[in-house]
Amino acid sequence: MKSEDSLIARVVRTIPSITSREGQSSRVGIGDDAAVLKQATGLEWVLSCDAFIEGVHFLATAHPADSVGYKCLARATSDLAAMGATPRFFLLTLAVPSNRTSGWLSNFLKGMSRAARELGLRLAGGDTTCGEKVALSITVIGQVAPGHALTRAGARPGDLIYVSGILGAAKLGLDLVLTGVGGKSRYARLTQTHLCPKIQVQLGCWLSTHRIASAAMDISDGLSTDLYRLTSSSGVGAIIQADRVPTVRLSDRLKRQIEKRLKVTLNPLEMALHGGDDYVLLFTVPPRHEKRLARFRGAQEPTCIGEITRGRQVLLADSSGKTRPLRPDGWDPFRR
Amino acid sequence: MKSEDSLIARVVRTIPSITSREGQSSRVGIGDDAAVLKQATGLEWVLSCDAFIEGVHFLATAHPADSVGYKCLARATSDLAAMGATPRFFLLTLAVPSNRTSGWLSNFLKGMSRAARELGLRLAGGDTTCGEKVALSITVIGQVAPGHALTRAGARPGDLIYVSGILGAAKLGLDLVLTGVGGKSRYARLTQTHLCPKIQVQLGCWLSTHRIASAAMDISDGLSTDLYRLTSSSGVGAIIQADRVPTVRLSDRLKRQIEKRLKVTLNPLEMALHGGDDYVLLFTVPPRHEKRLARFRGAQEPTCIGEITRGRQVLLADSSGKTRPLRPDGWDPFRR
Repeated sequence: MKSEDSLIARVVRTIPSITSREGQSSRVGIGDDAAVLKQATGLEWVLSCDAFIEGVHFLATAHPADSVGYKCLARATSDLAAMGATPRFFLLTLAVPSNRTSGWLSNFLKGMSRAARELGLRLAGGDTTCGEKVALSITVIGQVAPGHALTRAGARPGDLIYVSGILGAAKLGLDLVLTGVGGKSRYARLTQTHLCPKIQVQLGCWLSTHRIASAAMDISDGLSTDLYRLTSSSGVGAIIQADRVPTVRLSDRLKRQIEKRLKVTLNPLEMALHGGDDYVLLFTVPPRHEKRLARFRGAQEPTCIGEITRGRQVLLADSSGKTRPLRPDGWDPFRR
Repeated sequence: MKSEDSLIARVVRTIPSITSREGQSSRVGIGDDAAVLKQATGLEWVLSCDAFIEGVHFLATAHPADSVGYKCLARATSDLAAMGATPRFFLLTLAVPSNRTSGWLSNFLKGMSRAARELGLRLAGGDTTCGEKVALSITVIGQVAPGHALTRAGARPGDLIYVSGILGAAKLGLDLVLTGVGGKSRYARLTQTHLCPKIQVQLGCWLSTHRIASAAMDISDGLSTDLYRLTSSSGVGAIIQADRVPTVRLSDRLKRQIEKRLKVTLNPLEMALHGGDDYVLLFTVPPRHEKRLARFRGAQEPTCIGEITRGRQVLLADSSGKTRPLRPDGWDPFRR
């Protein structure tokens, strides 16, 4: 590692990038003071940024550099999926200690490059600097048809509440990774959802294109916290049927092994309600669009878990119909 | 400090922001997964991001929180000025230790708010988290007429090289701040250029609107390093006249006082060539546009310091005409 300029050159060689020489949807890319983006007529830009900090979002000792690179870009892009936007570009702010600019950085860039290719993203600019610990910030830029962006604010009483995948698996994956289990053990399927989450861009775009969803967001901090945010934005309440929430299913044998390793009794419903890091979509659908939702063909299988209600309460109902308040108790960086 | 959501609410109360309720140039703002920006017909977006990390770009012990907030937004916006773009929006990634979410954060937000108002920027989104040290990343978004963005790549042999202010003052301000001198001492004028740099948005926009400059960038890492980048991008060389470079002027008395305090002999030219953190514009002008440049009316006074040459060498000429190579020796985070 000789200088910031040589580090930038390495980043651009590894990650699909826009350089100043190109002229399609961008006029100016990496190597100038800023990127210049031309917008196709009739589309809007969707922008979001996301921090990924060593010691807060990942540990250098437990998380492989490849996963850090993949995941920080993937989770930022989940905000675009939640808006129904097509991912296009990203900007990367990368602070890295001088002693990790060799092998660690190479693996980090490989992971990020893999995510960029899968998600259809190209690097349009960034800033690199050194720091005592790795600190990352990603700005993702997507496109959406005017007025089609999915917001959190459109849910109405009577709308059905959907999630597009299993909840709680990432939390279990995190707990396993923290015990030193890598990605290639018998727990690989479980740790992968934590290390390299699959982002539901296809479903998000489909929902916005066909105007199926009245509101949407991604579950990053846990269903209880994120549902609270969605209902607050929409000025509504919700009732969730506990037995419909898609939870992690384990064989009795695997469950026993994991409980022994983690020294806890697993509670799949609690993990699903408050675990976080899931990056599945949480969205609401007016009953008249329910049949159209069934036409979605993709890897994700939306599951109806409840209904939007009048008032502001968020309730959890058990199989007997008995309800209790579901309080936001997901991940909060200031309450760890 | 109770939660991430209450911290976001404080940020939005203090800084000029776009909220989800508005509908002008944005459809969706803070409080959703991402911001949605409508582009005025016939304009292009210009985007850049910039890191500002405790221990690298500032010290908690020496730099007031107000200055940290002001400067991190100002220096990011300097990249827009360098492109000739009009600042519009910004995204803020803010990692802050739990024990600095009270007074420190309030002063930080006040400084950032002041910069946002001066620069015409509104907060469109962001991410907040906790961290062991303060780590900031700012994404700034500006607008420019199609094809008008100023790049680093357009300088041609014979073009005149201009800088739009005094170089080296910020480096001197930094050295004074590191000795414990605050913003209200007899050195206030010198430390202010380091603590709260004025960004040359007006000049940048004027140069791009009137198509005066063939290439431009801002001087953030020092003239020697940034001129090297500009000439490399343009595939040209340069010759700088040492006696034309605008350097810091001090009375003999003040110079002696500072030298005593800093325990060095001040060399204004060296500070100007390699100091960095200046945020003045470096730009090139074809000789046929020289007279039009004189029509600029603003706080900045562009000074011609040399000429673009064929070949790739960057030379420094003294008053007798003798030249020596000017090597990039400005600030590099990986070579401190």
